Amino acid sequence: MTRVEKIVAPEVPEPPGASWSNCLRIGSELVFSGITAMGPDGPIGGDSLEAQTRACFEKLFAQVRAAGGDFGNIYKLVIYVTDIAAKDEVNSARRDMFRPTYPVSTFLGVSGFVFPGLKVEVDAWANLDISLHERDSQ
Amino acid sequence: MTRVEKIVAPEVPEPPGASWSNCLRIGSELVFSGITAMGPDGPIGGDSLEAQTRACFEKLFAQVRAAGGDFGNIYKLVIYVTDIAAKDEVNSARRDMFRPTYPVSTFLGVSGFVFPGLKVEVDAWANLDISLHERDSQ
Amino acid sequence: MTRVEKIVAPEVPEPPGASWSNCLRIGSELVFSGITAMGPDGPIGGDSLEAQTRACFEKLFAQVRAAGGDFGNIYKLVIYVTDIAAKDEVNSARRDMFRPTYPVSTFLGVSGFVFPGLKVEVDAWANLDISLHERDSQ
Repeated sequence: MTRVEKIVAPEVPEPPGASWSNCLRIGSELVFSGITAMGPDGPIGGDSLEAQTRACFEKLFAQVRAAGGDFGNIYKLVIYVTDIAAKDEVNSARRDMFRPTYPVSTFLGVSGFVFPGLKVEVDAWANLDISLHERDSQ
Repeated sequence: MTRVEKIVAPEVPEPPGASWSNCLRIGSELVFSGITAMGPDGPIGGDSLEAQTRACFEKLFAQVRAAGGDFGNIYKLVIYVTDIAAKDEVNSARRDMFRPTYPVSTFLGVSGFVFPGLKVEVDAWANLDISLHERDSQ
Repeated sequence: MTRVEKIVAPEVPEPPGASWSNCLRIGSELVFSGITAMGPDGPIGGDSLEAQTRACFEKLFAQVRAAGGDFGNIYKLVIYVTDIAAKDEVNSARRDMFRPTYPVSTFLGVSGFVFPGLKVEVDAWANLDISLHERDSQ
């Protein structure tokens, strides 16, 4: 049997009674629930799509770090937004916070997220046994 | 070569001439087409989002059983709904039908499903070589 | 460490300065960014959902070929459309361009894609170490 471990980063707590896990490690693979910018007092980054996207990436990186990895382990993103026209804001956040070799990234316009005020949600796939920043990954 | 096997549960038949598979086993991994509550006479669960969600989970579990597994093999859900405000109904179904360690779960509002009357669609990832219910998975 | 390689098909170039990869090979697994029919002069296939879907599949196949594989390696599709009622056009393209054993395929209505005029986006998962066309895959 491949071992399964729940990963809980201090920056991304699970609410009491949650009927989901935020992150699981399955062998070397990391799987995630969709990440939003929701904080204790509303969306981190307020009304800014770019700031909310950065907050999602920060939460994602925090979870990868809690599993012993870093952002070079992340190989796929799916980024959902309610305002598809604002792709430049998502691109800006992704360019600043990742670096080549970039993960693959799917970008979609959807109708809504779980809390009002949220403008973006990030789903992700990562693996602790790879690095997109190694020379032979270019 | 890793062996690929089509999984067909009696509870989740493939329509004649379908241009997709409902479930494939690839080594120990199980991959699925998005699951709706559609039955022969319309959505199972009628107008109730919670009942439709339960029907989706039942179909998912039937497919995992047909592959020789159980619901502890399921490690990721993506749950799409047309009414994002009704998250409590989805939570209720998920809490009742899964148990800790819960799978990761992404929850999104989308604009529509393949048949009228459908309120929810469930995508899933599972692996026959893991169990989220083992002690060391907590 | 599992080796990561960027796959670039001549038919699916990456724009200069892209903050994503179109396709990565991770061991035997291939992961993709969502694929649209966007070409240098607008959507390939114009206003036709079916023609755009075929263009997406052609791009997907080109990337799999660039990695040394063929369309029998593709085991999961997620097909997003803005007009969910037009499922027959997607089915027609998928039936013509794939063959049994078909990949699993999730079909969803979403609110928008990254460029105006796009009617469909295809996400995909493939593995170079499997073939859905082998006899024991039926």
